[in-house]
Parts: sequence; C-alpha cells; structure tokens
Amino acid sequence: MKDSPLMRDLRARLRALGVDGFLIPRADRHQGEYVPACDERLRYVSGFGGSAGMALVLADRAAIFVDGRYELAVREEVDLSIWEPVFLRETSLAQWLVEHAPGKKIGFDPWLHTPNQIAELSKRVEKAKIALVALPANPLDALWHDRPGAPQAPASVHPEALAGQSSSAKRSQVAARLREEGLAAAFLSLPDSLCWLLNIRGSDVPCTPLVLSFGLICADGTMTLFSAPAKFDAALRAHLGEGVAIEDWSALESRLRALAGETLAGERQAGERQAGEAVGLDPDSAPEAVRLILEDAGARVAPLADPCVLPKACKNAVEIAGARAAHRRDGAAMVRFLAWLDREAPGGALTELSVAQRLRAIREETASMLGSELVDVSFETISGFGPNGAVVHYRVDERSSLPVKGDGVLLVDSGGQYRDGTTDITRTMAIGMPEPQAQRAFTLVLKGMIAISRLKFPPKTAGRELDAFARHALWQAGLDYDHGTGHGIGSFLSVHEGPQGISKRSGVALAPGMILSNEPGYYRAGAFGIRIENLVLVREPALPAGGEREMLSFETLTLVPIDRRMLELGQLSADERDWLDLYHAQVLAQIGPLLRDPAEKAWLEQACAPLEG
Amino acid sequence: MKDSPLMRDLRARLRALGVDGFLIPRADRHQGEYVPACDERLRYVSGFGGSAGMALVLADRAAIFVDGRYELAVREEVDLSIWEPVFLRETSLAQWLVEHAPGKKIGFDPWLHTPNQIAELSKRVEKAKIALVALPANPLDALWHDRPGAPQAPASVHPEALAGQSSSAKRSQVAARLREEGLAAAFLSLPDSLCWLLNIRGSDVPCTPLVLSFGLICADGTMTLFSAPAKFDAALRAHLGEGVAIEDWSALESRLRALAGETLAGERQAGERQAGEAVGLDPDSAPEAVRLILEDAGARVAPLADPCVLPKACKNAVEIAGARAAHRRDGAAMVRFLAWLDREAPGGALTELSVAQRLRAIREETASMLGSELVDVSFETISGFGPNGAVVHYRVDERSSLPVKGDGVLLVDSGGQYRDGTTDITRTMAIGMPEPQAQRAFTLVLKGMIAISRLKFPPKTAGRELDAFARHALWQAGLDYDHGTGHGIGSFLSVHEGPQGISKRSGVALAPGMILSNEPGYYRAGAFGIRIENLVLVREPALPAGGEREMLSFETLTLVPIDRRMLELGQLSADERDWLDLYHAQVLAQIGPLLRDPAEKAWLEQACAPLEG
Repeated sequence: MKDSPLMRDLRARLRALGVDGFLIPRADRHQGEYVPACDERLRYVSGFGGSAGMALVLADRAAIFVDGRYELAVREEVDLSIWEPVFLRETSLAQWLVEHAPGKKIGFDPWLHTPNQIAELSKRVEKAKIALVALPANPLDALWHDRPGAPQAPASVHPEALAGQSSSAKRSQVAARLREEGLAAAFLSLPDSLCWLLNIRGSDVPCTPLVLSFGLICADGTMTLFSAPAKFDAALRAHLGEGVAIEDWSALESRLRALAGETLAGERQAGERQAGEAVGLDPDSAPEAVRLILEDAGARVAPLADPCVLPKACKNAVEIAGARAAHRRDGAAMVRFLAWLDREAPGGALTELSVAQRLRAIREETASMLGSELVDVSFETISGFGPNGAVVHYRVDERSSLPVKGDGVLLVDSGGQYRDGTTDITRTMAIGMPEPQAQRAFTLVLKGMIAISRLKFPPKTAGRELDAFARHALWQAGLDYDHGTGHGIGSFLSVHEGPQGISKRSGVALAPGMILSNEPGYYRAGAFGIRIENLVLVREPALPAGGEREMLSFETLTLVPIDRRMLELGQLSADERDWLDLYHAQVLAQIGPLLRDPAEKAWLEQACAPLEG
Repeated sequence: MKDSPLMRDLRARLRALGVDGFLIPRADRHQGEYVPACDERLRYVSGFGGSAGMALVLADRAAIFVDGRYELAVREEVDLSIWEPVFLRETSLAQWLVEHAPGKKIGFDPWLHTPNQIAELSKRVEKAKIALVALPANPLDALWHDRPGAPQAPASVHPEALAGQSSSAKRSQVAARLREEGLAAAFLSLPDSLCWLLNIRGSDVPCTPLVLSFGLICADGTMTLFSAPAKFDAALRAHLGEGVAIEDWSALESRLRALAGETLAGERQAGERQAGEAVGLDPDSAPEAVRLILEDAGARVAPLADPCVLPKACKNAVEIAGARAAHRRDGAAMVRFLAWLDREAPGGALTELSVAQRLRAIREETASMLGSELVDVSFETISGFGPNGAVVHYRVDERSSLPVKGDGVLLVDSGGQYRDGTTDITRTMAIGMPEPQAQRAFTLVLKGMIAISRLKFPPKTAGRELDAFARHALWQAGLDYDHGTGHGIGSFLSVHEGPQGISKRSGVALAPGMILSNEPGYYRAGAFGIRIENLVLVREPALPAGGEREMLSFETLTLVPIDRRMLELGQLSADERDWLDLYHAQVLAQIGPLLRDPAEKAWLEQACAPLEG
C-alpha cells in the first residue's frame, strides 16, 4: 500500500479521534444531485469525480465504492496504489465492511448521511460488531487547505406570477399539515423544497436554481431559514416578510437546541408528553446530525416525509401554463438545432462536443429571440454517437468526443432552465444510414413511449403499475433497458424531483399536475443507444365516452419531431401511426409560427408531414 | 340497547377479567380462509356468517365490522338491537376504537390474532390511550355450551408420485434456510405449509385438504407436529418417519418453553447472545400467543416469513404434470356442463342453484369416468345470473337463487380438488340474447385476459407490474373492476395461496412453476357480471427469437371454450383473434378425445371452431 501526505495526515487524525476508519460520501448536507465545490470531499480525497460514490479510509487500506456507471472511470481517476475500487454491483458497502473490518469503529460525518442511511448500515454491519461513530467535526475538512468557499450567489424572488401561489399560502398549507400530524415544527433540508416554499431561486449549484439552505417551520407557519445572510438583499427580505427570519448557518445548532427546550417546557406544563411537542424530520433526506442534536437536547423527533415534496410536485395552473410556454420555446430551439444538424452532419466536421455546444448556443439564442432567457441548461447535455450512445449516463468531454459522421445514430439528451419551467428532452437521430437493428430498436422504443402517452388510468395508480407499458414491445422481442421510464420534473427547479416516477420502484400515486418524463430506451453495448423522451403532464380526471369511472391521462408537453428515418413503419399499428401523425401536426402548429428562418420552417414541415403508406 | 343472556354473561366475564371490551375476529388459530365449526366464534356470538369480519363487545354497546361484500348481509343476519354494523369501507376498527373507546382496556384472544395485527392496531389506538390486553383464555369459549368438537378427520399420505419431492428433502431445504438465517428453529402455523412440507393431506375444513396443525422445525431438519394424534395412523406415521414427532395440541406451550430454555442455555454457554439462538416466527400469520409464550420464556423471536410459502408456490415438474392432468379432467367436466347448459337453458327450468348442483355432479361423474376422483370442490361455486352476477363474492342459496331464463348473462366460478391438482375457472355464458352492453364489456374483459396470457416479461417482475395489462382495455373505456387480476393456487391445496399474485398490491417476483389465476372482470350493479378466468403457469425463462434477454411467460392450463356468442368481434385485434382461435384449437385437441357422448363432442367442435370473418 502506497500512501500520500493527505492520507497520512487523515489517518493520524482518525487515530487521535479513536476510530479505525472514516466514510467519505459524494454528498453534501442536502443530499443534492449537484454538490458545490466546497463539498466535493470525495473528489478531493480520491480524485474520483463521479456523481455518486463513497470512500472508506481504514488504517491500512482504502476502498472506493462506485456503481455500474463508473467502473471504468474510477480506475482512471484514482491512484490505484492507494485506492481499491469496489463495484457496488458486486459488493455493497455493508458486505465489504462485514468482511474486511469486523469489530472496527467506523467514523462518519453526521451532516453528510441521513438517519435512514445510518440506521440501515448500522443494522447490516451489527453482526460483525462494527460500530458507526458520528464524529463531532469532519477530519478531512481540517486538512483541506485550499478548500473553496461556500457558495454565496445572491438569491432572488420567484414571483407569484410564475409560482402561482404566494409563499404565505404555501406555508399555511404546510403548517396545517404539521398541526394535523401533531408536530410543533419541522426541519427542512431539501433546498428545492425551501425554494418552492418561499418562492425564491438562486444559483448555488450548476443547472438547478437552488438556494442552499436549511429551514425550520413552526406549526404557526413562521419559519427560520439558515443560509448565508448576504445572499438575501432588501427586496428579497421584503418578499419573505416578517414571518421568515434569515439566520446564518452557524445559528442552526443553538436554534435546534432552543426549539427542543421549548417542546420540553410545553411537555412539563401539560404534565405529560403530548404529541404536539414533537419535531418532524425526514429520515430519508435530513442530516443525521440534526436528529442527533434534537435528541441530545431532549426533543422527540418524529419521522415526517418532507411536507413540501408532494404539493411541489402537483403543479398549479400558473406553473402548468409556464411549463407549456417553456416547452414551446424549448421546442423551437430543438427544431432549429435538428435542422442545423441535418444540414451540417453530411459535411463530416461535427463532433459530439461541438453538437452539444451548438445546442446550448441555439437554446440561448432562441430564448432571446422569443423575448425570454435561458437561465442555464437543466443538466449537462448527453451527446453520444454510435457506441457512446449506449453508455446510459455518458458525459461528453474533449477526450471521449467522437466525430459525428458516416452512418450511425446520435442520441442527444438535454434540457433548459427557463424562469417559467424546466425542460428535459431526448431525441435519437439518424446520421447517414443507420443499421436496420437500430431502426428496429427505435421502433420498439417508440411503441413504448406512445403506449405511455396514450394511457388512461384510474386515480391512485402508481408509476410502478404503468412502467411495463413502456417496455412491453421490447419485452416481447427479448429486449429491455436498465433504467426507469420516467422521473418527476420541477417548475424552474430540479430536473429530477420526487415523489412521483414511472418505474418498478415508484409506489406514489400519480396525481393531476405532476410532470414526468416518458423516456424508454434501448442500448446495444459497443454499437448504439436509443432513447426517446417527452415530458408529460398528468391531466385532471375525465370520464371517457360511454364510461363509468373518471380516468387520468397524460398531456404531452414536449413539442419536437421524432425522426421518421429511424422507423420501421410496418411495425407500427394503425393507432400508433395515428398518434405520431397527430403529435407531429401539433408540433407543426405550435412551433411553426415561432420560427423566422424559412429554411427552418421548411425543415419542420417535412419533419412533421404525415407518415406515408 | 337490548341484551341477550349470552351477551350478559360475556360482559360479566369481561368485568371479572378487568377489561372494558373484547375482540372476536372471524379467524381460527391458523388465519385460515375456511374455519372449522368449533372456531366459528363470530357466527356464534353474532349470527353473522360472512367469511371475514370482527366483533367488538364493550360494556354498553357492541359493534360488528364488515367489508364491502357483507354490508347488506350483516343487517339481515345480526340482531340490530344488540349489534351496530360498522362498514370498514368507511371506518376502520382503529378509527372506531379511537372515537368510541378512548382510555379503555380491550381484551383479545392472542391465539386468534397475529403479532403484526396486534402491533399495528396498538400503534393506531395508542393516541387514544387504548390498551390491548391479551387474555389468558377466550371468555366466549367458556360460555359456548354446545360448541362443536375440533376436527378429527384422518390425515393421509400425499405420495411422492404426486408431490414430486420427498418430505425429508423439503425439510432439509427449510432447515438449511434456518441455518442461513442463524435460527435455532422456526414455528409454523399455516396448515397448507405443513401439509406441503410433510407431504400429507386431510379434511379438517371444507374445500381445502388441510390437516389443521402447528409445527416446530429445528435447524437440523427434525420437527414436531402439534395436532390431534388420532388423525395419524400407523401408515402415516411410518411415512413421516423418525424425524417427525406427533404431539397433542396441548403439548405446544410446554414444548415452546422447553425450546426457549434450550436457546437460553446455548446462550449462556457461548458467553454472549449469538444469532443462532433465535426462534423464527412469521409475524403476519403466527398467533400472537406463540410470540408471547416464547418471549415470556426468554427466547429471542426473529421475524421470518413462513419458509415453506415460496418453495410451495414454485411447483416442481411432477406437480406441473399433475396440474395439467387435473385441468384436462376439469376441462372435460366443464365442457360437458356447458353442453348441458346450452341444451337445458332454453327450457327455462334452470336456476342458479340447480346449475351449481349439476356442475358439481358432472365434475364428480367426469372424474370417475376418467378413472380419477373429485375429492371436493375447491370452493363453493359462484353461480350468478343477471344482477346476481354483478355481486363479486355472490354465494347462491335457496333464498337468493334466480331462475336462469330469458335473455341474460350467467357467471359461473367454480373449481375442483383432485389429488394431482387444484382447479379454479370462471366462464360467463350468454343465455338467450344478452344485451349489447354485456357483449361490449365481455370483449373488453377478454382483451385483458388475452393480454396477460400473451405477455413475455423479465425474471424478477412482480405481479403489480403486470396487473394493469388486464385492465388496459377497460380503463380506456372508463371501466374497471375492484379485485385483483390473479391469485396463486396450490397443488391439491388452497385455491388461494401466496405469496404471488397479479394485483396492484403484489410485490413478489413471479417465478417459474408458480400457478396463478388470470381473471379480469367487469360488474354492472343491478344488471350483469362478467368474469373470464383461466389458470396460468409461469414457464421457465426462454430467449425470444432475435432477443438478448430471457423472458418469462405464461402457459394457460385451463382448457374450456370461451363463449363466442358474448363477443363483439370487431373489437378484437388480429393478434387477439389468433390467440383465441389457437386456444380453442388446443381445447378441442386436448378435451375432444376425453368425451364419450357424440353430442358433447359436437358441442365442443362448434364451440371451438375458428372465429368467422
């Protein structure tokens, strides 16, 4: 085993703290998908830059745990003389600990793990007499000399004209929920929940307009936001009003202890413990540290799924109108991009990277042309040609970028952050003459996407009951894909948001106003990748003609042609052909008037023409 | 409030026991679907004869809780001056207790409730400071002077030629599982698990060949069966062998305490508590009483889903061959019945009851004609004409029985217990000229049944991911049905068995060898009911032509024509017509040769002819 000065220093600190090891997750205190630079501890300690992973440093060895996406990358990014890569597909963290660290004390930073993560891991390593020890301070942070500062980007108002509901109305609603549950207060740790609740947005992390913060909301609707106070200017403070106090991060622990003290006082007054004195906390997302502080201070902690998540997911009429407008704008940008691609690809000078860059430029230009603004992309564009298209979470860079030329299939998954809505779209395009197998797979994938688009289903149906409709055509052919069919999407917020989804794991009832992706795919390793993604909105229930029970259905929001050159027309049923023709007619009607360049209009007209035969 | 001598005596006993109320479930100690007469406490105390329900007797009122099936029946069967019917659709037992019995002590018989039932109910009534108190003896039993004796039907060997695996091999398999889980022993309370494990059958309850018993299996594969020893003759004891001791029910408690003592001794020897000393018990099916005894005696009780349930559900090759044979025999009986019905119905003299009686007679006669034996029906036949067909759990009796004549739809759901297999089939037949709405609904229901029949799906898929395929055609028309699409079926055992199912609640992965029903339906209250039910077997995984991944699929076991007079032919796709023609060709090929009466053969030929047009 080789060593480095950093690892030597870290191990010395662990010995001084009396633990045998230390866990370093790729997580910040908010369990966010995007982590600010100051929280990239995993990358700092190991060099590994993936979006998920966990390091474990023991006295005489160090392991890094990664999922299927990063099995190749981890070997290139970490020093293999220091780090042992472990593949979660084969061995879980708990299994590895039980085998390699029996009887050890393993330290962890309780701000970076949730109560359920710690409880689950503790339970699974108990039989090997492994103890998990919450450390009072992160030993790595003290050794991180050039650590970047915490984000200080100014927060801004998300106006009611876009949010559709005032923050005070939202807070009343959440407070009523707390009273129903008999809770004195709830701790909130998800920045997108807080941004929704307070009608604010920020830019603390890339691609998602978050204000990193914690919140404490009381059963009377007043709340305290813990963040960097400098982010909040006078206008924003005026917007938040008297019911919302802004405090520095550093005040959180004393406020939690004070809250615990109040609940204890209430308890003594009432003579015996009352349900009203508990503090709610989401054990799936809050930091274990907050639970420990509250319990240490004597508060009763009650598990409470973040009460903002469900109302945030069910978009109101204003947010829905915003989503439709954002999708028209984004559709115009995508149409211009696809017309450009068709014009430029035969020249043979394009690359995956130049395609992604051009798409971003067109999104910016189109938003501006239509009197709006692209605030950011909603995630790093996936632009994968041929075999790179088969890498499900591919991110193109200078090194990996393939030329987009010859015969093949280009998969582009991208999205925009507009102030009125967040978009996410995938199209798979023919470059030259794609192989027949790719056309066959494309057609099966499209059948799945159409099946979801056309569904009617009763209220209370969960996504896991619908997921198989997207896979049915592939299954009958002995094919499948290893990701969910759909995820929730925020309103100028996260491109991945809960609680809804369309996957075998999603037990949440779909409800009117929810926006989801509909994105079946197929990936042939080393050859090509197919994915077709539209966003869909769950409509209000309606009675089908001649029916007895109201049914939910999906309205497709995304307005971008689907590449007919990829189709095996004979495989589509008459109903599927009708759906596609109607969809293209809608795209043409809505996007056509937004285009100014006659060549782009002409491209759209041919792309949206009815199917032949 | 009126009173009765029984209720007065019961209340006096409750006062003497120091409790304010008492729960009387419609359950025996095995949580069985069929309850022996000596356990029909709910019927004895209230007169209510439904297959599910719960009574609660308080000092000054008494409530009886029933589900949607029994809302009408309960009002006819109980004395409404004593009993208050409560509909579980509106108010759960917990809700009612919280509202009407705050602060009370509610007694229960811990042999008749499971640990999870009690834990769940306790948790839900905790806030009203209601305590559930396990009573040492059932106070009702002492007042039940003419109580029937416990079943004493002789048990018999289920030979390996039908079971396909020896009992000792099954016990070794379960014992290995216990050792894996680090358990000293497991308590088994499900009679069908014990019958499977020991390759025995009995007749302690109607319709299901059960030997009512408890079992205790040790990690070395030896076991003790607690039942009435007189049920076991010398031949059966020889079959069970030395590894299986038979004891009287009355020995159970002392044996449990002795087992707990042994695990404690092991613990002291080892110096500290070892995982190996726990006793496994299924908290969803075992009696709470057993858990209380084990804990009282110092044993550590570990939750363990009954380890027989999953291997029992996955039928082996011999059981599968038996199921196919039983279905040919049952198919011949059903064909003879349907031919008889078509001949007799125009005469106008049939009733729901006479139809059900005739069907049973034909099943017996056909089994005998084919050199076999109908041991019993597998449940009470549902025979519902017109509006009675729309009552999902309809049981015909003298009072309810409608004449089967004129124009309408007859729904018949029935099954047989044969030594080589259990059957369950529903057909819906045209009598005269059914209304077009019934034909339309029948066609939509059939589309759902065919969709399930034709599915290919990957291993690890759960029934809840497939259920919606059976409903899709109905959903698109604004229709649905309020029951699951499919349940598991035993091998000469219970007609309803877990863990598998096809319903929105069923999260168990479907696996090769499982047998399920495929029975979508539609019910128009006051008018007609439609249900079409085949049993299907999960096949071994196979690679579809040109595919990459092996897929599971269903083999249809049931071989009985589907009434084409009920079809709206134009609503079927070409694939669906092909499926139906192929199915009918298989029915004709397999059942035709079993028929002796030329008129029956001729009927089958026309019923199985290819669709026109």
